[in-house]
Formats: sequence, C-alpha cells, structure tokens
Amino acid sequence: MALFAERGYAKTTVGDIAARAGLTERTFFNHFSDKREVLFAGSESFVNLVVDAVRAVPKSAAPLDAVIAAYESTSDFFEERRPFARKRSALIAAHPELRERELIKLLSLAAGVTEVLKQRGASASAATLAAETGAAIFRVGFEQWNQDPKDRSLTFHLRAARRQLEGVVRGRVAKRL
Amino acid sequence: MALFAERGYAKTTVGDIAARAGLTERTFFNHFSDKREVLFAGSESFVNLVVDAVRAVPKSAAPLDAVIAAYESTSDFFEERRPFARKRSALIAAHPELRERELIKLLSLAAGVTEVLKQRGASASAATLAAETGAAIFRVGFEQWNQDPKDRSLTFHLRAARRQLEGVVRGRVAKRL
Repeated sequence: MALFAERGYAKTTVGDIAARAGLTERTFFNHFSDKREVLFAGSESFVNLVVDAVRAVPKSAAPLDAVIAAYESTSDFFEERRPFARKRSALIAAHPELRERELIKLLSLAAGVTEVLKQRGASASAATLAAETGAAIFRVGFEQWNQDPKDRSLTFHLRAARRQLEGVVRGRVAKRL
Repeated sequence: MALFAERGYAKTTVGDIAARAGLTERTFFNHFSDKREVLFAGSESFVNLVVDAVRAVPKSAAPLDAVIAAYESTSDFFEERRPFARKRSALIAAHPELRERELIKLLSLAAGVTEVLKQRGASASAATLAAETGAAIFRVGFEQWNQDPKDRSLTFHLRAARRQLEGVVRGRVAKRL
C-alpha cells in the first residue's frame, strides 16, 4: 500500500511489492492472484464477518434490522483501519478496474447476506431487498465515515444513512440535502 | 439464442453462432467482443433508455419516484421481449460468468442513474441511495415479472416490489411473505 502511494498504482509491479515485503515473486503469487488482490485480501474476511453477524442476530429481528446490526458490528474492525481505509478508497476511486473489482466483492457480500436472510426465514424477494438496501446503506455510510473530518464512528454514519434512505423511500427527501 | 438452447451455452462456439447468422467469424467479432456479448447486446440500449427516462421526469418528482417512473417506462420494451427474456434469464442463472457480467451491467446502470439524479439536484448520497434502491426494486420486480404465470406487466411487478421494499425499510415485514 505504501508502495502504491509512493510510485502510483499503475507503476508498481508485483516485483516491487514482493521485494518490499521480502518475498520472491513466486511466493507472492502463492498468496495473491495479482497485484490487485493486495487491496482485496481483507475483503473475504469482511464478508465472513458480516454474514456470520447476520446469522447471530436474534430471529425476532426484521431482515433489514439484522443487516444493519451486522454492519454496525464491524465498526471497531474499521476504526482500527481508518488510515488504511482512506488510502485504499482513494486508490480504488482513481482506477476503474479496481472500482469494478470492489463492486464485485460488494455484490458477493450482498449475495451472502441474501442467503443467510433466506435461511432465517425471509422470502427470496424480501431477502434480496433487505440485503441490497443494506448494501446501499453500508456503501453510503462507509463513504461518509471515510470522509468525516470529525472521525465519528461507522455506526454513527450507518444510522444517518439509514435515516436518509427512509426519507428517500418515503419520497419526502428534499432535492438538496 | 436458439443455438444456446439447442446445444447448451458452453458447447456453442462463435463459429456456430456466426454460421447460423450467415456471418464469418471475422464479421461476428466486428460486432461482438465474444459470445457472451450476444446476450448483452441489448443492455447498453436499455441503460440509455433508463437514464434518458430519468432525465425526462419532471424535476418536481422525488429521486426514487423518478427512478421507478423510468423503469416503468421500459415495461412495453420488455413486454415485446418476454419469451427472449425468459430464455436469457435461465441461461444467465446457470452460468456464473454470465451472472457476473449481468451484475456489472446492472451496476453501470445504477451508476448512470446516480449521475442523472445528481444533475437533477440530488445530493451525492441521496442520489446513490435512490439509484441503488431503485436497482433493487427493478431486480426483484423483473424477476417476478419473468416468472409470473399470469404474464402481468413489468409496471405491476415494479409497484409490488416497491411496496414490499417500503415494508422492509419500515421493518414491518413478516418474515415469510
């Protein structure tokens, strides 16, 4: 990540990354399929964290409440990683192929959440709607958290995004918020 | 499409498709980057249709209303294509690499809708929430339309999906609908 910041993402080779980490290129490829994977290595554990958290929410909770509670439970995980998350987001925003990879990872997250909601007894359509609405709230809340000069928690921003979404769905949103 | 149904998607080569269409392989590749593109050739015009429709909705409409109205305006477009849409959906559901391509196309649609909503004066976060909520409603409504034994219109199913989403967001959804 430091290398991407120093040299620019496009100019950093797998050889550079491996050398900085004290690995051969061959060892690097044992761990990552390509240099993009360096940025996404944490994504899978994040997906598992969220899916397990949805599973752990009491069954009495409505689907969207379960999803938001699961995202809120990752607030500490991200708090420890705020400086990393900011650099990573800036890098992803600047490179279309990274944006695409990030979106695919978020989609696999929503698909995983949909499955767990169905296992909890939601219909397929309610599960999809709750998982995708939750993903939209997470995306907006995470973005606001990432840019917040006051460093308020992810939970704070998820709740604000949910309130904003409720306004959007009721159609009572002011055009400029 | 007929060929995919006869021989199976994996077994159909570009040569087969070109021969059936009376084209050389070379001419085929002038039109499509690979055989998957045959299924996605209409996607770009669909994206433009929706984005233009959002732009055409009066500015007084709230963002989500504008998005749903735009999707509803494609109801006739899909009505003419119902048999094609059913075969296409079945094919996509059966092939993970097609599912991924389909999701990427839907993401570019949501991104396009987000941009138009911002041009209409919505904040970045309200635009994202309305575009992604609208995409979730479209996805669920389209799926129900596709499977409806009574062949009711896409507009009918979009409205039903929106009502269901309102229930999900209020947290008043029964766990099994």
